[in-house]
This record gives sequence, structure tokens and C-alpha cells, in this order.
Amino acid sequence: MSVASQMLDTYPKDLGGVDREKLRACIEACYECAQACTACADACLSEDQVAELTKCIRTNLDCADQCETTGKVLSRHTGYDANLTRAVLQACVQACKACADECDAHASEHGHCHVCAEACRRCERACQDLIDSL
Amino acid sequence: MSVASQMLDTYPKDLGGVDREKLRACIEACYECAQACTACADACLSEDQVAELTKCIRTNLDCADQCETTGKVLSRHTGYDANLTRAVLQACVQACKACADECDAHASEHGHCHVCAEACRRCERACQDLIDSL
Amino acid sequence: MSVASQMLDTYPKDLGGVDREKLRACIEACYECAQACTACADACLSEDQVAELTKCIRTNLDCADQCETTGKVLSRHTGYDANLTRAVLQACVQACKACADECDAHASEHGHCHVCAEACRRCERACQDLIDSL
Amino acid sequence: MSVASQMLDTYPKDLGGVDREKLRACIEACYECAQACTACADACLSEDQVAELTKCIRTNLDCADQCETTGKVLSRHTGYDANLTRAVLQACVQACKACADECDAHASEHGHCHVCAEACRRCERACQDLIDSL
Repeated sequence: MSVASQMLDTYPKDLGGVDREKLRACIEACYECAQACTACADACLSEDQVAELTKCIRTNLDCADQCETTGKVLSRHTGYDANLTRAVLQACVQACKACADECDAHASEHGHCHVCAEACRRCERACQDLIDSL
Repeated sequence: MSVASQMLDTYPKDLGGVDREKLRACIEACYECAQACTACADACLSEDQVAELTKCIRTNLDCADQCETTGKVLSRHTGYDANLTRAVLQACVQACKACADECDAHASEHGHCHVCAEACRRCERACQDLIDSL
Repeated sequence: MSVASQMLDTYPKDLGGVDREKLRACIEACYECAQACTACADACLSEDQVAELTKCIRTNLDCADQCETTGKVLSRHTGYDANLTRAVLQACVQACKACADECDAHASEHGHCHVCAEACRRCERACQDLIDSL
Repeated sequence: MSVASQMLDTYPKDLGGVDREKLRACIEACYECAQACTACADACLSEDQVAELTKCIRTNLDCADQCETTGKVLSRHTGYDANLTRAVLQACVQACKACADECDAHASEHGHCHVCAEACRRCERACQDLIDSL
């Protein structure tokens, strides 16, 4: 069982009406995507064609930042605020979509963009699933 | 002239149609609010009535995280994506509003909540002003 | 294979003399520990005895922040700087040790502190192993 | 009076033996440097010679991350841990020094690297001053 799952199990109060499984999946997807985007930005920096990848690097950095924030907000349950959670998730959907689209455009040439695009799509779906269940 | 302002002045390409003054104000408000919320969460932790401030602490932490992310996204201009910028700003407006409301409820008792609520309101307005100008 | 591992495999240049397996383990431990500490701070906030857990919450927050930074620094390989990597890892060892010690003191009463202390110990060891191999 | 200064003034307990003025200066320098490094990484991305600036971008990103973490750790006073504070400050000194050196090498060609190098030097000195006073 993952640490994120164990942390949900040991939270001392009720998690509210949230879908625990969708929440766990979304937390894990956010942290995974944050790491992938950070690494993809750096891998793009080390490509010989870095000059053609500057928009990809920038989108990677934005997506890493928003995924980190979303992963942290979702890891907190005290004083839950549905409007705040929804707004943060929507920003994350947008960031993941933008980054997945950008990485997909280079996925056939750069393996890191392929791996990163998949992580972004998983995170986008996990955020959307969680929004739909709120 | 602030460092954020100098960094805007030395950006090597065109900033696009963005309102430079609103952008600068918003970047500075995000970093200021992120610091204030981090400090307010900690100040609440040190209050004797911490048990009554747990929702405030949680909202402070969420707001600090979203403001940091927004401040970073706004500090980047390469490959600008209006949809992503707008979604991140909207999440920040929501986080600042939630935190300002929460801190305002304790502002008469706790000086740090008063200072933090004002920083959140400034950041909320700066983000909304920037959204309106996009 | 984890996404962090796939990102290392698709990095386009040489990773230098680094021990790839220790690096992967350390990146994953940093992100896992960052999430656990964020969740543990929040779980402590929701305990009835929150007033006795304020130092634990503060140490959780510091450890989460330093683990995030360390996880990001280790996810970058372009223009590697051994002195910077070592200093960041040493700060992470210190943060993880402080947080593990603090959480261990409450581990028998609070399941989240038990899970978090273990994540901190794993991360402390992974950082120390990587330092020793540099 | 800055918001960081107001937050220190409204902290409800004793700040311990810390030099309040050095602490305030260091908190402000960390946030300022984090912003400058984030913006400098992006400005480098938009330079025609981006291929020659990849190490600079990477160091900017590391420095931004470590400065953010240091600024947050210093904004907390509850349950102060001198060893943790010192280790985080030392990592920040190292990150600022590396980034200032890297940016200085391009300061005559790129105005953003000049502004960023100065922000890094100020932050390096503020962190070292605070370490010396602990």
C-alpha cells in the first residue's frame, strides 16, 4: 500500500463525502506528474535542439508547479473548502492538458516527452474524475 | 525599482499584449501573500487557542502554495498560454478570497491574521485586475 | 517501472558518474516524504490534542518543503554541480532526521506520525546513501 | 513597513535569541531571489543563444527552489530547531553562490543575468549573516 494511501487511512477525522479512491489516485498522479515535468524540463534543456523546445520547457515548469500545489491541497482534509479544491483542480487540469499537448508534439522524437505526456494525461484525468465526484 | 520590475524590463523579447504594470503588481502581490500566509499559519500554531485556528492554518497553507505557483507562472513569459494563465489566476483568486475571509474572522484578536487578510485582499484584487485585462 | 525511473532512462545525455539506482531511490523517497509530511501536518491539525503537536506540524512543513526542493534538484542533470547537490542533500538529511525524531515521539499514539516517521527515515537514508556515493 | 516585517511584529510568542533585523532581511532576500531566479530562467529561455545558457537556467531553477524553501523555513518560529535552520541556510548560501557565479559570467550580455546575480549575492550575504548570528 502506498504511503499516500496509508496517510489517508490514518487521518484522524472523517474525510467527508469525498471518493477516497479517486482522491488517492489524484494525489499520487499530481506528485508523479510534478516529478515528470521537472525532469522533462531538464531533459529538454539537454537536447541539442533546445532552441525548439523552449515552450515545452516553460509549460513543463508551470505544470510541475501547479501539480505540486494541487498535490498538497489534496493532501489536506482539515476545514475542507469545496470551492477552493475545485478551482485548484481546474487549474491543474488546464496545466496538465497544456503540457500533455505540448509534449505530445515532440513525443516521437524525445522519449522523455512521451513519458511526460502520459503522466500529464493521467493527472489530467485523475483531476477531472475528482472534480466530477465532488 | 523592485527586482520584479527590473526582471520585466530586462526580458529579452516582447511581453505580448499584457498590461505590464498590472503584471508587475500581481507578481509582487503573489510573493508577498505567499510569505504572509506561511508566517500566519505559523503564528496561528503558536497561539494558545490553536485548536480554534485549525481551519485558518489549513487555508493559509493552501493560499501560500497557490500564490507561490501563481507568482512563478506570472514570472514566465516564454510561450505564453492565456488559458493556463487565466486558470491559475482564478485558482489564486479563490485561494486568496478563502484565506482573507478566514483571517478576517480572527483579525480583531490576532494581529497576524489582520496583516495576512490585507495581503490576501491585495493579492485577490491584483489577480482579478490581471484576469480582467487579459 | 516508475515514472521517475523512465525519466532517468530517457535523459538524452550522460548522467555522469552518479549511481543511477541510488539517485532513483532518492528522488522517489523525496517526493514520497514530501507528500507524507504535508499530510501528517494536516492530520496533526485535526487531532484533538493539536496544541501538543505544534512543533511536529512545524517540522513536518519544513521537511515537506526541503524534500520537495531536493526532489526537484535531483531530477535535474544538466550542468551538474556536486557542491550544490551535496549541500541540498545535507539540508534534506537534517530536515528528515528532525521530522522523524519528532514524529517518532508520537508514533504510538498517532498512526500518521508512525507512517510519516518511516517515510522520513527512508528519505534520510536515501539522501545519506547518495551523498556517500557522490 | 514591509509585510514580512509586520508578520514578525505580530508573531504571538518570543522570537528567541534571533537577530530580528537579520532575520527580516534574510526572509525578504530569499523571496526576492526566488522570484528573480524564476524570471531569469525564463528570460534565458527566450534568448537566441539559449543553447549556451542551459547551465544558467538549471542553476536558476535550483536556486529558486532552495530560496523558496529557505524563505518558508525562516518565516516559521514555532518549535525552532537551530540545526535544521543552519543546514537549510547553508544549502541556500551554496545555491545563491552557484547561481550568482553562473549569472555573473553572462551579466555583461544579458541584463536579466546582471539583475539576478545581484539578487543572488544579496541573498547569499543575508543567509551568511544570519548563520553567523545564530
